[in-house]
Amino acid sequence: MNLAANRRTILRAVPLSVILLLGAILVSPSLALAFPSLGLQQTIVMEEPIPGAFPLVRNQAAAPVLVSPDDYPGVRRAAADLQADMERVSGARPTLIDDEKHCARFTVILGTIGKSPAIDRLVRSGKLDVRSIAGKWESFLIQTVAHPMPNVEQALVIAGSDKRGTIYGIYEISEEIGVSPWYWWADVPPQHHAELFILAGAYVQGPPKVKYRGIFINDEDPSLSGWAKEKFGGINSKMYVHMFELLLRLRANYLWPAMWGKAFNEDDPENPRLADEYGIVMGTSHHEPMMRAQAEWTKHGNTFGNGEWNYVANAEGLRKFWAEGVERNKAYENIYTMGMRGDGDLAMPDAGGLEANKKLLEQIIADQRQILANHVNPNPARLPQIWALFTEVQRYYDAGLRVPDDVTLLFTDDNVGNLRRVPTPEERGRSGGAGIYYHLDMNGGPYSYKWLNSNPLPKIWEQMNLAYRYGADRIWIANVGDLKPLEVPMEFFLRMAWDPAAIHKEEIGKYQQRWAEREFGKEYAVEIADIVAKYAKYNAFPKPELVKPDTFSLLNYREAERVAEAWASLVERAERVASELPADERDAYYELVIHPVKACSNAVRMNIASGCNRLFAQQGRVSANAEADLTRQLFAEDRRMTDYYNHTVAGGKWNHMMDQVHLGYIDWYSPQVNVMPPVSQVDSPDTSDFGVAVEGSAAAWPAPVRLALPPFDSMNRQQSYIEVFPIGTQPIHFELSADKPWIKLTEGNPFSAGKDDRRIWVDIDWSKAPIGETAGTVTVKGLKGAAQVEVSIARATEEESVAARGSFAVVAAPISINAQDTAQNVAADGVNWEKIPDYGPGVSAMSIFPVTASSVQQPASAPQLDYSVYFAKPGDYSVDLVTNPTLDLYPGRALSVAVSIDDQTPQVVSVFTPATGKDETFLGRRYNENTRNNSRILHFNQSVPSPGKHTLRIAMVDPTVVIERIILYRASLAPSFFGPPAAVPVSNNSSQ
Amino acid sequence: MNLAANRRTILRAVPLSVILLLGAILVSPSLALAFPSLGLQQTIVMEEPIPGAFPLVRNQAAAPVLVSPDDYPGVRRAAADLQADMERVSGARPTLIDDEKHCARFTVILGTIGKSPAIDRLVRSGKLDVRSIAGKWESFLIQTVAHPMPNVEQALVIAGSDKRGTIYGIYEISEEIGVSPWYWWADVPPQHHAELFILAGAYVQGPPKVKYRGIFINDEDPSLSGWAKEKFGGINSKMYVHMFELLLRLRANYLWPAMWGKAFNEDDPENPRLADEYGIVMGTSHHEPMMRAQAEWTKHGNTFGNGEWNYVANAEGLRKFWAEGVERNKAYENIYTMGMRGDGDLAMPDAGGLEANKKLLEQIIADQRQILANHVNPNPARLPQIWALFTEVQRYYDAGLRVPDDVTLLFTDDNVGNLRRVPTPEERGRSGGAGIYYHLDMNGGPYSYKWLNSNPLPKIWEQMNLAYRYGADRIWIANVGDLKPLEVPMEFFLRMAWDPAAIHKEEIGKYQQRWAEREFGKEYAVEIADIVAKYAKYNAFPKPELVKPDTFSLLNYREAERVAEAWASLVERAERVASELPADERDAYYELVIHPVKACSNAVRMNIASGCNRLFAQQGRVSANAEADLTRQLFAEDRRMTDYYNHTVAGGKWNHMMDQVHLGYIDWYSPQVNVMPPVSQVDSPDTSDFGVAVEGSAAAWPAPVRLALPPFDSMNRQQSYIEVFPIGTQPIHFELSADKPWIKLTEGNPFSAGKDDRRIWVDIDWSKAPIGETAGTVTVKGLKGAAQVEVSIARATEEESVAARGSFAVVAAPISINAQDTAQNVAADGVNWEKIPDYGPGVSAMSIFPVTASSVQQPASAPQLDYSVYFAKPGDYSVDLVTNPTLDLYPGRALSVAVSIDDQTPQVVSVFTPATGKDETFLGRRYNENTRNNSRILHFNQSVPSPGKHTLRIAMVDPTVVIERIILYRASLAPSFFGPPAAVPVSNNSSQ
Repeated sequence: MNLAANRRTILRAVPLSVILLLGAILVSPSLALAFPSLGLQQTIVMEEPIPGAFPLVRNQAAAPVLVSPDDYPGVRRAAADLQADMERVSGARPTLIDDEKHCARFTVILGTIGKSPAIDRLVRSGKLDVRSIAGKWESFLIQTVAHPMPNVEQALVIAGSDKRGTIYGIYEISEEIGVSPWYWWADVPPQHHAELFILAGAYVQGPPKVKYRGIFINDEDPSLSGWAKEKFGGINSKMYVHMFELLLRLRANYLWPAMWGKAFNEDDPENPRLADEYGIVMGTSHHEPMMRAQAEWTKHGNTFGNGEWNYVANAEGLRKFWAEGVERNKAYENIYTMGMRGDGDLAMPDAGGLEANKKLLEQIIADQRQILANHVNPNPARLPQIWALFTEVQRYYDAGLRVPDDVTLLFTDDNVGNLRRVPTPEERGRSGGAGIYYHLDMNGGPYSYKWLNSNPLPKIWEQMNLAYRYGADRIWIANVGDLKPLEVPMEFFLRMAWDPAAIHKEEIGKYQQRWAEREFGKEYAVEIADIVAKYAKYNAFPKPELVKPDTFSLLNYREAERVAEAWASLVERAERVASELPADERDAYYELVIHPVKACSNAVRMNIASGCNRLFAQQGRVSANAEADLTRQLFAEDRRMTDYYNHTVAGGKWNHMMDQVHLGYIDWYSPQVNVMPPVSQVDSPDTSDFGVAVEGSAAAWPAPVRLALPPFDSMNRQQSYIEVFPIGTQPIHFELSADKPWIKLTEGNPFSAGKDDRRIWVDIDWSKAPIGETAGTVTVKGLKGAAQVEVSIARATEEESVAARGSFAVVAAPISINAQDTAQNVAADGVNWEKIPDYGPGVSAMSIFPVTASSVQQPASAPQLDYSVYFAKPGDYSVDLVTNPTLDLYPGRALSVAVSIDDQTPQVVSVFTPATGKDETFLGRRYNENTRNNSRILHFNQSVPSPGKHTLRIAMVDPTVVIERIILYRASLAPSFFGPPAAVPVSNNSSQ
Repeated sequence: MNLAANRRTILRAVPLSVILLLGAILVSPSLALAFPSLGLQQTIVMEEPIPGAFPLVRNQAAAPVLVSPDDYPGVRRAAADLQADMERVSGARPTLIDDEKHCARFTVILGTIGKSPAIDRLVRSGKLDVRSIAGKWESFLIQTVAHPMPNVEQALVIAGSDKRGTIYGIYEISEEIGVSPWYWWADVPPQHHAELFILAGAYVQGPPKVKYRGIFINDEDPSLSGWAKEKFGGINSKMYVHMFELLLRLRANYLWPAMWGKAFNEDDPENPRLADEYGIVMGTSHHEPMMRAQAEWTKHGNTFGNGEWNYVANAEGLRKFWAEGVERNKAYENIYTMGMRGDGDLAMPDAGGLEANKKLLEQIIADQRQILANHVNPNPARLPQIWALFTEVQRYYDAGLRVPDDVTLLFTDDNVGNLRRVPTPEERGRSGGAGIYYHLDMNGGPYSYKWLNSNPLPKIWEQMNLAYRYGADRIWIANVGDLKPLEVPMEFFLRMAWDPAAIHKEEIGKYQQRWAEREFGKEYAVEIADIVAKYAKYNAFPKPELVKPDTFSLLNYREAERVAEAWASLVERAERVASELPADERDAYYELVIHPVKACSNAVRMNIASGCNRLFAQQGRVSANAEADLTRQLFAEDRRMTDYYNHTVAGGKWNHMMDQVHLGYIDWYSPQVNVMPPVSQVDSPDTSDFGVAVEGSAAAWPAPVRLALPPFDSMNRQQSYIEVFPIGTQPIHFELSADKPWIKLTEGNPFSAGKDDRRIWVDIDWSKAPIGETAGTVTVKGLKGAAQVEVSIARATEEESVAARGSFAVVAAPISINAQDTAQNVAADGVNWEKIPDYGPGVSAMSIFPVTASSVQQPASAPQLDYSVYFAKPGDYSVDLVTNPTLDLYPGRALSVAVSIDDQTPQVVSVFTPATGKDETFLGRRYNENTRNNSRILHFNQSVPSPGKHTLRIAMVDPTVVIERIILYRASLAPSFFGPPAAVPVSNNSSQ
């Protein structure tokens, strides 16, 4: 990497006020960053000196780092990391000095305001203005200061408003000079620079918009557990310090530790001590109150009262148990989980109906507060506390249960990334505020996803933006499973938590590029960013655990084929990059990019091959056996990739991290072993018999079925295909003919593992086709008979074509319209339908911004999306509004839109049918199906009064609806996962 | 075989009147027959002379056979067969003489009354009394006559009332001396006897109870077609003469020839000529009117009018086509198919609604009659004609369409052996009467069965007995597919057609034994008969084409396991017989017995192995892979057996006869190739992990599921099991314990292809169990945790046990009661519920006899089945009345029964819900499901007022209901194909 080439693109140091403003602005695309950081979001480090820049490393010497012995041990420890990081990058190891006497001509001075005499003296002397951070939460200032003290010509000051403020400032320098936060956890190699200069200026960050930002290590068996056991002897402090450091480098501050049969505070007493020393605020998970792990109760519960985890039956025992917990950990920085669920993260035993349960839970929390008062702080309102509204607990809240004002209401998502609730203004006014517990990994209902990353960033953005805009900003905590395969979404979640407004929805892709550039350098950043974004996107429709042989249609829209092609293309791109990357980046690339791409592609392809095997066997194709072979090969390949990750990458550093069983899900929980999708085989005769299949039909000639291609029309210009395949083991011979001059037949490549299957593309030569509806026949003739394939077409008149130009045309075949493809997008009162790029399976989705806009009572004056649609015939049409399965997260508000044709009275339809709330059932009708599909389809009918061009209008009613596509059809829609591919408007030459 | 040993069991000749009486009586079990015939049903042939017996062959010389040159060519041809048969059996070839001068001292005189001067002279001379047959249809007399003419000491006279009467008499001798009708078609070796004597006496047969008795060769591709092509150059007269001869030997007279692209009369002009010469009445299938094959229209239709097979559009053309057909065949004995369906055995094109269609069809038939009058007989009422009420045609009839009185109404079954209709008294009064077209093979809806025999004889008996008793006796014709694999049911159908009353329902098994004795001799007859009966029975639940991996429950009632065991036992028995049979019987035995037994067992076992593979894979069992291997092995075995049948048996005589594709059905039509049921595989870890499964649950520990065995109770004394199986590849170690002394654990053999799975039987030691409901736990403990299995039991008090003795007990588990296991079977007015042995999947079924009994209006005084049932608890119980899916075959009558508990008012429930009749949909609600399952379950609730013993009463409402079982349960019934195995009443020691 050549700094010179990029010199002119580097931001000049600018006054503080400007910087404060810039803090919220992403660097524009023309500003390629030399040393990207995902924290500060602007580059302050250079390899070559420019006037005024601070020489961090020059002439193989590193500036010494001054840190006060009185500063926090965590700050001093982080300073040592800076020392190591500078050496990693430059080879020059700075001296850590604790006495100003040892300062050099150029010295790094770091410390916490009030804990560092040097910093405080600079402030007092007016040489350092810390008003922008002083007294604020977790804020820092990085500033070059000339002549800070007599013997120092220039200092680089890193001043923190508090302990973590300083630490974040230190790690900001580390990241800027080229040490990824993931240098250890993802083997990202430090960049190498002989010399390092910090641009003159002042750079401020903080306070963070979300106060507590953390992760939950959960469902850590078998991967993280197995790995930690081999590498550290268990999930203990030797492992945790790596995690603490990572969190701090990512500007996080909060951790729920692993708790599957594990007790953070008991298993290794160094755990909480070191967490506190590092600066990590510890909690326990949503269902483990009062700093005690569930595993502690499992182990000792029987020594507390009657041993029952039931407050009706064993209040005294539980209080004692809890008191011990808070007493034990009171010296540390904690957030206390309040309330109670049943044992093992299940619903609490029924205490006699909703009211009784509510009352009991109120009593429990009151008693827990008293314990906190007795043991930790006489005023428990001063202690951070959460009450997690998980699953059934939210029901108690909805029914009126209230907790003290200072307790943070921790709302949750639905386990798969859809927020169940955001705070109301009243709730925002509570001193405890509100937070969000969010899942990037799940072991439980509606389904588990514990293998590889299936969390596209735009979805996280969209949901967490809601959280932020509605004021759920006290705590954001993400369930990251084993941590390891979720590096990308975890960092995005935490970066967003620091300042959600800093990442605009239009620039999520840019964020990903900056990430890729930091990890792998500028050259491949755009490509890698796209690969990583795409694999996560593909993995969300549906998650790889949910892909089955019949998930993607083998019959309609070439769906399975297109999915397989998309994955294959991604694999090819990822492998091309891999072959060109420097050797030292290969491990990181394997872990972060190529493994998930290839492993997920492999899993999807395996299921498709199994599906082909089944279909082809039904059709009698010899190639069914080739599909079976392919399925088995891909199953073996899955094992090879898993083994490679575990044993070969980074010299086996991550052994067991890929132990998660991931193939063969049949219930919400993961299978015991990987199970190959089933394959059949066929007993082919020794003949030259062949069969004929067509798009859309499982049954193939010579079975006694009618063969007809999907309809063609001149406005949409569909293409379709016929496949001719051996049934016997001998070569096949057939004659292909069409009885109409407008039927064009060309041979292409079949989607088949069998080498002898043949695909014939069928197109229409519209210039030769008659006007109106007509039909022709393709005949495939062999020795034993002939297959007839019907071809039905509709050619529009010149007049009709002209009328339809620029509109989407619904003739006979269903069409799908991307929500963004409006003819007109009408704002109202500053409220807009806006695009969230790359959201959903398509190019984007449309949602209302600002997301906090009020519901509209009069659809006529609402923001609206107008689509121009040409209907060849009048009558009743089906409309499938494809939305993301987001939930009705605001009390009393539905997820409605108003739909109309032209100026008809709009139909107000709700894309969401709430659950009855009576039981534990999650979240609305067809919730399981919707979340599995990662889409919710609202089906309704729309009457079209006359043939010709019409406006299909979708007007806002409620915000937070996310519309992805609109599917229009007349009769029935052939089954598929995605529906028809997006249509394009009728073009100018459509009448030819 | 030693005649002497059996001598005393031979029936003595008895006077004619007695014989006529005996004709209707099956030989009782103590009368083992020396030379069984399935025609005369009594033995008249011996190997050793007794006084008065006619020496047919003695001293290596055969008595000459006198047949008049004036007799029918068909009679003379049959006489030549007798000549050949005598030589086959004895080695001595008789002389065929046509001049009385050449008579020997002992001479066979055969001929048709009025066509044989010798016979006629004997009649005139008073030496032969033919009054019992003269003028009757197809009757014959076999009689020894002393001194029939001067130079003859004794004659054996075979006199026929008509051509076929004589022929049937001739073949009766052939069969009695030891030539099976199937000697050629199933390679049954002729018996060998040096000498043959005919017992003195007169033996009369005829007239047959059903006038026309025949078969339909249908859906003959690929098996019969391929075979005939290879052996005869096609389905031509060289092939057909074998079929004509077989039919005559079976006393049949009627044939619908193969018609898949074949034209009997055009393909080979010798076909109709020889049929007529042999004595076979030819028809065309139900949808081919006027003696013309569908294939003729396919070939020539375009030369008749406008070429459309549509009477609205092309009446003139069709009339010409039909006229040619009847003109061509008018010299022969035919039955004319009248009416018209659409082309290719489809419904006729709609002529404008039901009334218009009816009217059109009436016109068509009137026109066809006119053509017959013009070309064949001026009085067409003298020509036998049929109108087949197939599928939609019956609808026109139901709607009032009537045909001339002399046209036989050919009612049909539902394609799978359930009669749709029997005639009313009014219909029986028509001069044309009524007949039945019945399926033993089907290519079409609701599903095809074209492979091996799946027609148990009791079902054929039950249905065709209805046909007979309700007077459908003019024609019986069975669709026998390719003929060959349906030897047994085809003969039974035809034998029954000769005299339905001669086979009693209690003696169907004996009939089968007599068949087995004829084909394979006395020694193995009982065993072979049972094997053949059982394979057909097993094959009917469901037909082998319908068996899928999930057909039989792998979880409940050990169902799949018991099915597999039943088949395995049958295979073992069949192989044991095979190993002991003489070599010359092996081909026949392979074709008739061992191939269907092994091939069907193999197909069922293959599907069960595939099902196990799927289940075991879900459970993580290593043995899933062994099940996959087994599935593949059995698939290969299927191919080997097919090849053996085609290429090896009888020296390859039957090549192609086993070409029918039979594995992998997914629709009604047969697949193109045999498709193996799918198998998965598991990627087992290198650990000693194990899993624990229990009866009734697919999910297995360590999946997060509750494991509980089905309930145990002291009255039914259930047994259940736990399975412990390796998940990893290392040997497993576990500790098994129970927390209650009454839980007995013993190790048994698991139903698994994996050698390391373990099964633990769980029984209850009732002497140690506490009274009442209680529970215990079985623990399976390993290094990584312990599986807990719940065991719930209910022990009755001594008082309860005493109260329940002799009754069926419903405690917690569902129970099944065989319909025959009544406490009381109450007749009323000579109407009874009677047992049809071996009917259905169980031991028998119960139905009303006489079958023509009138419906009952007052259930209180109806014949009733009383079951004594002890209910442990009062409340609502589910009752599943399991019936055979017979249809409501009598107009205006339902299939109802009345059910009550004790003296409650009976609920009248109909076991059958008729179809609306609006469309072509076959035959009642859930028809497809019922026919696939070969059972129809009527579910209803019954309130039980108090605990203790009650009478469950099923009273007759309508006849022709066939009840197989009653299933009683409280909550839900675990899914399975058959339901719970039959329960036994509470025994005397049930309280221990």
